[in-house]
Amino acid sequence: MPKTKEISRRQFVNSAISVAAASTFVTPQVLSGFAGSAGTPDTLQSQTSPARAADPRWKDQAIENLTKSPNAKLRNVPVHAVTIGSGFWGQRRETNVTNSIPSMHDLLEANGRMNNFRRLIDKSKGAQRGPVYSDSDVYKWTEAAGFALQSGDRPQIRSMAEKFIEDIVAAQEPSGYLNTYYVDDHASQRMLPQTQTTGHELYSMGHMLQGAIAYYRATGDRKMLDAGIRFVNDFLLPNYGSAPKKPIVSGHPEIEMALIELYRITGDKRQLDLAGYILQGDERIPLPAYRTIYMFSGTPFTSRTKLEGHAVRAMYACCGATDYYMETGDASYWKTLNILWNDMTSTKMYVTGGVGSRSDGEAFGDAYELPNYQAYGESCAAIGNMMWSWRMLAATGDAKFTDVIERALYNGINSGMSLDGRLYCYRNPLAFDPSFGETIRNPWYDTTCCPPNLERTLASLPGYFYSTSSDGVYLHLYDNSQLDWHLENGTALKVTQKTNYPWDGNVEINVAPAEPTDFTFYLRIPGWADRARVAVNGKALAVVKPGEYLPIRRRWSPGDTIHLSIEMPVQVIEANPRVVDDMGRVAVQRGPLVYCLEQLDQPDGVSITDVAVDLGQKPDAQFHHEFKSDLLAGVVVLHGAGFAYERQASRNSLYSRYSGAPVKTRQVPLTFIPYYAWANRAATPMQVWTPLLKT
Amino acid sequence: MPKTKEISRRQFVNSAISVAAASTFVTPQVLSGFAGSAGTPDTLQSQTSPARAADPRWKDQAIENLTKSPNAKLRNVPVHAVTIGSGFWGQRRETNVTNSIPSMHDLLEANGRMNNFRRLIDKSKGAQRGPVYSDSDVYKWTEAAGFALQSGDRPQIRSMAEKFIEDIVAAQEPSGYLNTYYVDDHASQRMLPQTQTTGHELYSMGHMLQGAIAYYRATGDRKMLDAGIRFVNDFLLPNYGSAPKKPIVSGHPEIEMALIELYRITGDKRQLDLAGYILQGDERIPLPAYRTIYMFSGTPFTSRTKLEGHAVRAMYACCGATDYYMETGDASYWKTLNILWNDMTSTKMYVTGGVGSRSDGEAFGDAYELPNYQAYGESCAAIGNMMWSWRMLAATGDAKFTDVIERALYNGINSGMSLDGRLYCYRNPLAFDPSFGETIRNPWYDTTCCPPNLERTLASLPGYFYSTSSDGVYLHLYDNSQLDWHLENGTALKVTQKTNYPWDGNVEINVAPAEPTDFTFYLRIPGWADRARVAVNGKALAVVKPGEYLPIRRRWSPGDTIHLSIEMPVQVIEANPRVVDDMGRVAVQRGPLVYCLEQLDQPDGVSITDVAVDLGQKPDAQFHHEFKSDLLAGVVVLHGAGFAYERQASRNSLYSRYSGAPVKTRQVPLTFIPYYAWANRAATPMQVWTPLLKT
Repeated sequence: MPKTKEISRRQFVNSAISVAAASTFVTPQVLSGFAGSAGTPDTLQSQTSPARAADPRWKDQAIENLTKSPNAKLRNVPVHAVTIGSGFWGQRRETNVTNSIPSMHDLLEANGRMNNFRRLIDKSKGAQRGPVYSDSDVYKWTEAAGFALQSGDRPQIRSMAEKFIEDIVAAQEPSGYLNTYYVDDHASQRMLPQTQTTGHELYSMGHMLQGAIAYYRATGDRKMLDAGIRFVNDFLLPNYGSAPKKPIVSGHPEIEMALIELYRITGDKRQLDLAGYILQGDERIPLPAYRTIYMFSGTPFTSRTKLEGHAVRAMYACCGATDYYMETGDASYWKTLNILWNDMTSTKMYVTGGVGSRSDGEAFGDAYELPNYQAYGESCAAIGNMMWSWRMLAATGDAKFTDVIERALYNGINSGMSLDGRLYCYRNPLAFDPSFGETIRNPWYDTTCCPPNLERTLASLPGYFYSTSSDGVYLHLYDNSQLDWHLENGTALKVTQKTNYPWDGNVEINVAPAEPTDFTFYLRIPGWADRARVAVNGKALAVVKPGEYLPIRRRWSPGDTIHLSIEMPVQVIEANPRVVDDMGRVAVQRGPLVYCLEQLDQPDGVSITDVAVDLGQKPDAQFHHEFKSDLLAGVVVLHGAGFAYERQASRNSLYSRYSGAPVKTRQVPLTFIPYYAWANRAATPMQVWTPLLKT
Repeated sequence: MPKTKEISRRQFVNSAISVAAASTFVTPQVLSGFAGSAGTPDTLQSQTSPARAADPRWKDQAIENLTKSPNAKLRNVPVHAVTIGSGFWGQRRETNVTNSIPSMHDLLEANGRMNNFRRLIDKSKGAQRGPVYSDSDVYKWTEAAGFALQSGDRPQIRSMAEKFIEDIVAAQEPSGYLNTYYVDDHASQRMLPQTQTTGHELYSMGHMLQGAIAYYRATGDRKMLDAGIRFVNDFLLPNYGSAPKKPIVSGHPEIEMALIELYRITGDKRQLDLAGYILQGDERIPLPAYRTIYMFSGTPFTSRTKLEGHAVRAMYACCGATDYYMETGDASYWKTLNILWNDMTSTKMYVTGGVGSRSDGEAFGDAYELPNYQAYGESCAAIGNMMWSWRMLAATGDAKFTDVIERALYNGINSGMSLDGRLYCYRNPLAFDPSFGETIRNPWYDTTCCPPNLERTLASLPGYFYSTSSDGVYLHLYDNSQLDWHLENGTALKVTQKTNYPWDGNVEINVAPAEPTDFTFYLRIPGWADRARVAVNGKALAVVKPGEYLPIRRRWSPGDTIHLSIEMPVQVIEANPRVVDDMGRVAVQRGPLVYCLEQLDQPDGVSITDVAVDLGQKPDAQFHHEFKSDLLAGVVVLHGAGFAYERQASRNSLYSRYSGAPVKTRQVPLTFIPYYAWANRAATPMQVWTPLLKT
């Protein structure tokens, strides 16, 4: 990182934060982390042959390297700094590295996606296969592999990734251009305005950069990273941007956040500036309104007032814009980002954290347009929601963003991968009837964006557990885990969580600074936690508010323990009455988990489309829960009281005269399972929102 | 029509029907109709220069010429045989010929659609404009013009059509091929399997044939008809069909019914056989399943078990298949047609008669997937529903088909054209909020299929009022009108209706055969008519059943009068509870008209999204109606009792804990207008289905 760039970046840094930010660079603990333990990134580093001199800080860079971002309130901790033990996410993550990432590698191979690179070197290797954006899926797999390796060596995955990277880099042209579709007959279309709009060149290279960065941060190996830098510095920056350079447009946003993360490594401000240029649109590429709506780009980001268009595009654009804000402090971005985030969470987000309700255009619907059977809720869009909310959290430290992250992660994202890690949902509906002919979980999609996206999310998950701030540490997510990192003042800090979360709400948190230190431990209290108690070393704290970070400011010493105890009753949720699809219906949630009914769990002869939930007088007391270790890899099921409507002959007609006559009902027990675990047994109807019996 | 063909067709005719059918050909009254009155087709005939010897029967051919269709129970009467007087449809039809058809002509010109033909003769005339199927819109306009002229001369429309036809015919190639897109660089793609699948060549030529036939039946002018015959007989029949001919597939069904109607003119059985071949799919054009679902073709029609895929394609395929059944009597077709029609009407049709609920793919949704805001309900699909149900009615005489025709016509079709006849809906939602940014009525769409389709429907409407059968006459639709036709035995018959329908349910029907004659007058009693009384010459009939044709069998004499009196209370409709979008809601209907709430008719400060209908103890008695002559060109509005929910702070959140606390309400009056008239004043929210206040 050239010193001159370092200085130019510092100009953005306000005094208070710059002290903290700068201190992270001079403190020796920054370089500790996992260093020295078996199978850690250090081990890997010795096996790499970096093309450039290795930056000694590579392995302490987190999902986002916010160490010097002037408008980030929180800073990520590296993925390797958090070890997730056995428990809810440990199980999913082990499946991810054992089954998902290796099997997706094999499917990418089998479907010719890697051969697309190899054929550019060896013309005997057959034709291009897959859609125009197929490169991106390989890159996203590489990013998943990179994050997986950040948690320790996995020789099989490392070997697969090394071979992929070798072929990727070999396919790059001397100009820096890299794309396996725009070759041969298609080469003349490269970077034409029309191609930029629909051809996904920049989208693919954005994923290439993210894959390269994750792999670099795992191994120190710069081979792919340097190829990415060549694309940016040799091909993109000299040729595209404001006049007299050629125009540039982000047909599918992604390059923006990738360029900014690259800037956070290189310090080359041109990369940040290009991201900003792209975010504002290029007037020289005239686009019809429907196209700029669909792409969520091509017009000034700061002119947007609502979420619309292709949901994944919109989420990635918002990620890039938040990153841009964190680096520049541009107030117009911050205003727009908050307007958009509020629009999403108050009118356009499923109770599962899924977004993009409309199949047509894979798009955000209108306000309150949240159909259940037809819910699109693409896995990638829920992931995009989490990624964006994570950035908004970094900018603010506001727990409302963490509530959305948790909601999306446990439900609308987690549903996207089967329990065995080999099948994926592209869309994540909130009601389903297999008799309509759709198979919801599949091993492969010709557009296979979601599977590697789910894999990179699980692989990077440790990086979402904690953040640091200038005055302490933030705990965001609960699971058996150990943080081994340091405060921003350099003091080493270990935090150990013991919990059965999300099956119950008790978390024992051991806080162990290297020496007694004054700092604030920001303990997240979830928004759903009506009744939470917190004790430090056995002494209860007086005020615990849901939906906030509880600031525990004290001198922490090794051996200090926080006991968090959240009551976890079943909660009955209703939607805003403007959501016509949920009118008269309720959803059931316990802790962070949204539940659903699957037909196969209900009594014989009771169709889930003919039942209502009976809440009696005490809504939350009508349910009891039961942990079933042998069901769906171990889940808490909920048992509730319900009524089944007796079918009437008239119900066979589509429309009939309203009679007002009461419909006969009978009591039936209802069994709910966590939504994320649906469709893991047999093809069976499912629904999240069930009618409420009015008493 | 060569005699040999005549004989070969007769082989299908069973003895009973053949007598009646043959008799229509020898009876002088067949040629009477409007003959002699000013501006009638006879007048037109003298101005045409038919390329072939004129068939003297051209002007007595109806929408469908079923005179010799062996499996048609009912036979159409010609459009010219019914004169619609002043009243509900008279007003709409006058607007159609005064505003709609001429202004659409000008828009087709202004958008280069006719120039697409002219440029093939004069290369200086610029580039092709519009989507690949743009020819079809010109042809559909020509069909609208042809039907309009069947009701009497309109010199402006005739002149426009003549010029169009001249250019169309001039553009035809010597081979018979005619398409303005697959020329120049695209010529090499003609009729390739891929082009047949997506290029709309046969779809466009199907509309060309329909336009040619309607214009021929209006004027006797065969110029365009003969061009269509050249396409079929010179280009299509010798080259496409079963091996060794080239394969053929109907990428967008339409050609099937057009070929069969052509066969009904020419008697050339090869045309019928080709339609049958296309309906069964051609195995030599392998297509993925999603494509044959979307197209509703490419696989055997008789293997289908449900409606799915592109709704207009499906409706047109079903029209063709019903026509094929009426000519061949193939029982497998009849079985499939009934399965499909029942599937549509019991699970996939809006209360407005609209079909195709899904925007994505303009498609049928799953069973009970009937969203209101997102309803697609393309105008063309509702028209397709009417056209198909009309054919099913012809095959059976069953009034259940007429109920669907009436529902679609008065509501989901009629809504498609603005009251001034210059704006059109492409989709016809059942709830709408203009703040989402959509303009629902527009003068022009780049895919302008719906506007001329609406125009041809209104222009052909007289042809839907009556049918004949071997034993009498069927009255299907009520409006001030005069039938001037004859029974199938040749006896001249005039039937005059006087009514204020649909604003009230009294219809005075004067039945005047040329001489006292025994026959059955089949009087339709609508399915919604709970209480209908019928009297003949003042004497009440004992049994009048809703949803049936009341057969009044007697010796009818000039001066006989039927009084039909249907009570028309407001009816409250509920949907099958499987329709989640209508759960807890009701729709309001009076007579054939479905009503809706428009925001601008409600009290200040009362949002239609926050109201409920209060039905009290007597559902249908809670409303009163009022005719407002100055509103929306004269409509009956309905006044009902409702409640408005007071907004709560918590309603601003998307999800909240279910509290069970009652929501405060206050009584408000609600004002409903006919659905077809919505969006004719200002951009304002609208909904058909309103929550029901449970008492």
